[in-house]
Amino acid sequence: MPQAEGSALITMGSTIVACTASVEERVPPFLKGTGSGWVTAEYGMLPRSTKVRRPRPETTGKPDGRAQEIQRLVGRSLRAVTRLTELGERTLIVDCDVIQADGGTRTAAVTGGFVALACALDKLARPAGAGAIPLTDFVAAVSVGLHGSGLTLDMNFVADATAGVDLNLVMTGSGTIVEVQATAEGRPFTQAQLSAMLALGASGIRQLIAFQREALGPLTEAVGR
Amino acid sequence: MPQAEGSALITMGSTIVACTASVEERVPPFLKGTGSGWVTAEYGMLPRSTKVRRPRPETTGKPDGRAQEIQRLVGRSLRAVTRLTELGERTLIVDCDVIQADGGTRTAAVTGGFVALACALDKLARPAGAGAIPLTDFVAAVSVGLHGSGLTLDMNFVADATAGVDLNLVMTGSGTIVEVQATAEGRPFTQAQLSAMLALGASGIRQLIAFQREALGPLTEAVGR
Amino acid sequence: MPQAEGSALITMGSTIVACTASVEERVPPFLKGTGSGWVTAEYGMLPRSTKVRRPRPETTGKPDGRAQEIQRLVGRSLRAVTRLTELGERTLIVDCDVIQADGGTRTAAVTGGFVALACALDKLARPAGAGAIPLTDFVAAVSVGLHGSGLTLDMNFVADATAGVDLNLVMTGSGTIVEVQATAEGRPFTQAQLSAMLALGASGIRQLIAFQREALGPLTEAVGR
Amino acid sequence: MPQAEGSALITMGSTIVACTASVEERVPPFLKGTGSGWVTAEYGMLPRSTKVRRPRPETTGKPDGRAQEIQRLVGRSLRAVTRLTELGERTLIVDCDVIQADGGTRTAAVTGGFVALACALDKLARPAGAGAIPLTDFVAAVSVGLHGSGLTLDMNFVADATAGVDLNLVMTGSGTIVEVQATAEGRPFTQAQLSAMLALGASGIRQLIAFQREALGPLTEAVGR
Amino acid sequence: MPQAEGSALITMGSTIVACTASVEERVPPFLKGTGSGWVTAEYGMLPRSTKVRRPRPETTGKPDGRAQEIQRLVGRSLRAVTRLTELGERTLIVDCDVIQADGGTRTAAVTGGFVALACALDKLARPAGAGAIPLTDFVAAVSVGLHGSGLTLDMNFVADATAGVDLNLVMTGSGTIVEVQATAEGRPFTQAQLSAMLALGASGIRQLIAFQREALGPLTEAVGR
Amino acid sequence: MPQAEGSALITMGSTIVACTASVEERVPPFLKGTGSGWVTAEYGMLPRSTKVRRPRPETTGKPDGRAQEIQRLVGRSLRAVTRLTELGERTLIVDCDVIQADGGTRTAAVTGGFVALACALDKLARPAGAGAIPLTDFVAAVSVGLHGSGLTLDMNFVADATAGVDLNLVMTGSGTIVEVQATAEGRPFTQAQLSAMLALGASGIRQLIAFQREALGPLTEAVGR
Repeated sequence: MPQAEGSALITMGSTIVACTASVEERVPPFLKGTGSGWVTAEYGMLPRSTKVRRPRPETTGKPDGRAQEIQRLVGRSLRAVTRLTELGERTLIVDCDVIQADGGTRTAAVTGGFVALACALDKLARPAGAGAIPLTDFVAAVSVGLHGSGLTLDMNFVADATAGVDLNLVMTGSGTIVEVQATAEGRPFTQAQLSAMLALGASGIRQLIAFQREALGPLTEAVGR
Repeated sequence: MPQAEGSALITMGSTIVACTASVEERVPPFLKGTGSGWVTAEYGMLPRSTKVRRPRPETTGKPDGRAQEIQRLVGRSLRAVTRLTELGERTLIVDCDVIQADGGTRTAAVTGGFVALACALDKLARPAGAGAIPLTDFVAAVSVGLHGSGLTLDMNFVADATAGVDLNLVMTGSGTIVEVQATAEGRPFTQAQLSAMLALGASGIRQLIAFQREALGPLTEAVGR
Repeated sequence: MPQAEGSALITMGSTIVACTASVEERVPPFLKGTGSGWVTAEYGMLPRSTKVRRPRPETTGKPDGRAQEIQRLVGRSLRAVTRLTELGERTLIVDCDVIQADGGTRTAAVTGGFVALACALDKLARPAGAGAIPLTDFVAAVSVGLHGSGLTLDMNFVADATAGVDLNLVMTGSGTIVEVQATAEGRPFTQAQLSAMLALGASGIRQLIAFQREALGPLTEAVGR
Repeated sequence: MPQAEGSALITMGSTIVACTASVEERVPPFLKGTGSGWVTAEYGMLPRSTKVRRPRPETTGKPDGRAQEIQRLVGRSLRAVTRLTELGERTLIVDCDVIQADGGTRTAAVTGGFVALACALDKLARPAGAGAIPLTDFVAAVSVGLHGSGLTLDMNFVADATAGVDLNLVMTGSGTIVEVQATAEGRPFTQAQLSAMLALGASGIRQLIAFQREALGPLTEAVGR
Repeated sequence: MPQAEGSALITMGSTIVACTASVEERVPPFLKGTGSGWVTAEYGMLPRSTKVRRPRPETTGKPDGRAQEIQRLVGRSLRAVTRLTELGERTLIVDCDVIQADGGTRTAAVTGGFVALACALDKLARPAGAGAIPLTDFVAAVSVGLHGSGLTLDMNFVADATAGVDLNLVMTGSGTIVEVQATAEGRPFTQAQLSAMLALGASGIRQLIAFQREALGPLTEAVGR
Repeated sequence: MPQAEGSALITMGSTIVACTASVEERVPPFLKGTGSGWVTAEYGMLPRSTKVRRPRPETTGKPDGRAQEIQRLVGRSLRAVTRLTELGERTLIVDCDVIQADGGTRTAAVTGGFVALACALDKLARPAGAGAIPLTDFVAAVSVGLHGSGLTLDMNFVADATAGVDLNLVMTGSGTIVEVQATAEGRPFTQAQLSAMLALGASGIRQLIAFQREALGPLTEAVGR
């Protein structure tokens, strides 16, 4: 999407999410006068990205709690690796729009959104193509499901709907955790099961960050410096 | 978009519109008990389909008059060639979502929406792949601009913004008019100018319908019987 | 309505529309600092202007697409004959409220709205009653219907509901076209039929502009200079 | 307004309110299955009924507390004289739309709304023009203002804005009180002042009910039997 | 509620209302530049303050007319005893939230809201604990019901639902009236009945103001000077 | 709050949350005809529960993402220990309204909401005071913060605002996890730090469940059978 400052199209199984990063010359009220910037995210789904058509949010007349929750997660994840004080008083809006949904759209939004953000920050902070991109590290997200005693990495819709526990892990390139959310859909789980899910998730994150490096190509070197 | 009953991705210059057709087992109140069906359309834009990011409609808190106008046009155009009485009490919703915008999104929505609708009606009305698709004809739409004394077919954003007159023409495969809207942005125009714009538009429609026939392939024969 | 800067009550058959023009000392964002003004319109219906009562728009919780479409049409039509650069940074709001509806409310709104606008511009631009009103020409609107092979000028509700083609024509005093919208409700129509409808519409416009001249009385001479 | 079941146009000074009564074949949930009906009112103002234009309520995005308050008052006043159990499970909606506002619109809405209601009940309950209209009495409303030590009946906008106390009185033809609201805008008032205001208000009510009798003509005899 | 500038918890029978007063450094547009301040009120109910759960107002999608009416009454009552010109350009917002509802919440809101307001004005206007609180008098409110020929002071829910006439009286410490609203729920009432209700209400007000004096303790002396 | 089927007032430090459970005879569409019930939660804050007054949600005109997120968490947590199939087609709505906020309102809402839910289920499922309450276990929630290398259990507002990592833990009486959410506000964290936070959280949960047992008294025995 050449009209955006940064963009990425991420495909994971049958899930497709279009991510764009836009720069706006304003900040939320609590940052005015601080010289610091902000990163925020918005999340949407095309009406027919799902098997059954979803009404457009503006026609339902009520807030979409799930979308609110996802865009807050994506925003927090991206801010965790961004040097906000180096942005100037600007907001980067990362839009994640689901073209096709088959599970894992929120984790795909984090992983793809990072690439779009890096591209936009490259243009913003390195107009001459030199110097650092104001990102401290890579960040990606993955889901892990517990089915009986088995684990599944990056669940599709069917796996997600039948998992007993659903874990979302947001992790950096250096293996530290930005966010972990684990929810029992049926029976509660033990700490041992949590550890196993985290370990599998970490291996998935390493693969995703390898793909991010590939997608960013020469920009990779300018991240995390 | 394999999850939808019908779909089409239309590209005109830099404009890209994703069209899907969905079948819902309900009709508007005024059709209940008549045995007849309905075709309606909805129109949206990804926030960064435009050069400057547009806020999502659910965040603005006010109706988007332009989108309302476009989706009413698309719905009327498609209904004009559909044999509604052969649908049963069903609604076909044609979603037209702009991935990238560079002028002419409403006409692209009609032209692409027709292909998505034909695919969905094929599945609905011809489960065995035989018989007619309940469409009386092809329908496509094109824009024509008047610049000084010159005419432009299918204007991009820059041409649209500078045109003195903007005409949208919706026409069938047999050359009859479904809808014509011509608006003077600056100086009013004469009937002779209107006729010239209509003639150029008709030639554009013929080309677009040739592309529709190509996209529909073997389904083409089942339309308009 | 003596409290408004300009006003007109237009009756066409059983249709009655009250039009007022108000001056506000503000312009839309894109005009700020340009010195130029704006003309916009709003359209409403009394709940019992129709045979069956319509809920008030603020109680429905959803945008009224039809009203949006009409007020955009009225605004465009009036701007087409207004010398916006001579208004200063002011907005003229033309409110068109339907007291009784029996077809043709949108065309009545254009025709009556013009008179209200002219009165308001007279007060604004000619405080001493001398000089020009910043309008380049008169403008009025009329509807034409195609019933089988017959044509009807200025359709009432019954004629409108049964017309095969519905044309709305906005035209100036010098006979040039500001806007034409023709929509097939049933069968598409030919260019010959379009021409016949335009010719009949033009004759209706001439009559309407004669009534506008009568209503404006001595102000007539200050328009279009 | 011949399309409504009942209607009245009331003029008090420069205030003009159009009242219509509509019959709908439904009742609020708490009356379902009781066989009894309901009377409700809605209140609106044309945007330019006031000296300074008011935005339409659907464009402000927030509830209009004043309109809510007025329509609740009008509804209560009319229900107080209606034999709801004789209506069947129907709702009579009395719409009061202010065409021009110069003080006293809420009291004019009650007084004019009564006439519209009586006309609609006449058609509903006396299809053959015989028998009683299910109204126990006439009802009208008037405002009284206290200015220093002087009293004003039926205040216009200027009087209302400068009154120290504003009393609204709703009273029946037999002189009993349906509702009294007295509000100190500045200094609180005494019971003696309240009594004086009530006495003046009662004399005004008697005049208004005489006008209602005149407006209803032969229907007058069928009220309150 | 120690975080608020002023607060009071009022219990009347089973009705409990939490009142807080907050100071904001802004005024409504019509007061800008006048040096004068404003007092406003907001009213809410916990979802399960009532016998049957009430949906939260933000989930209903429509304005709550009753709440609007009550908060306007509370605001007017408090302003009637406040020397607004001594506040500076500040707004005092008095929030009245019903914890438990058993009739009389609006009158409890006035009575408790006054105490919260007095505490906040004490902090605002008497930082050194000396001088006057900018209140001209005490104010409290009470309801009186007419049941057949008997009167009830401070009705609970059952009494309120069966009363033939419902009177709300807002009165000052010196016995003058700020607001009186009397509504016939069934049969209209006479002036003699109104007088009897006012007398009983006045005796209730005296008791309530005695409780307010007790609650305010040493602040009592600084009111009305 | 004796009008609710179940209620609990929970105080943790300066945080106070009123929790009520209401029974409604309806279920979400996806449960209709299954015989199974549902548990859902809603979350609100009194305007002056916070140091700076918060506008009421119905006046802001936009969805409150934070409240949405919290009420989804509370609902999931309570459903995880409820035998939904034993409720019949009923919904239990647990309202959590913050009276005073000083950190940890979401975890207090889970812990207090459980007690309110247990009381309501007792009345619903054990009308004779015998048999089991359809809850498989107790559930409570606690927050843990990481400050530099130190850990804080149940953070107040100041601790929360300065924590580097914020963990919310929802755990059952048998020590299994229902939900864990850990978010780095500044630097990402390691798995060892996550384990330490979980261990401290588990000890807090044990204390909270001891308080819940005390609050439920004799009902305790009927839970988890």
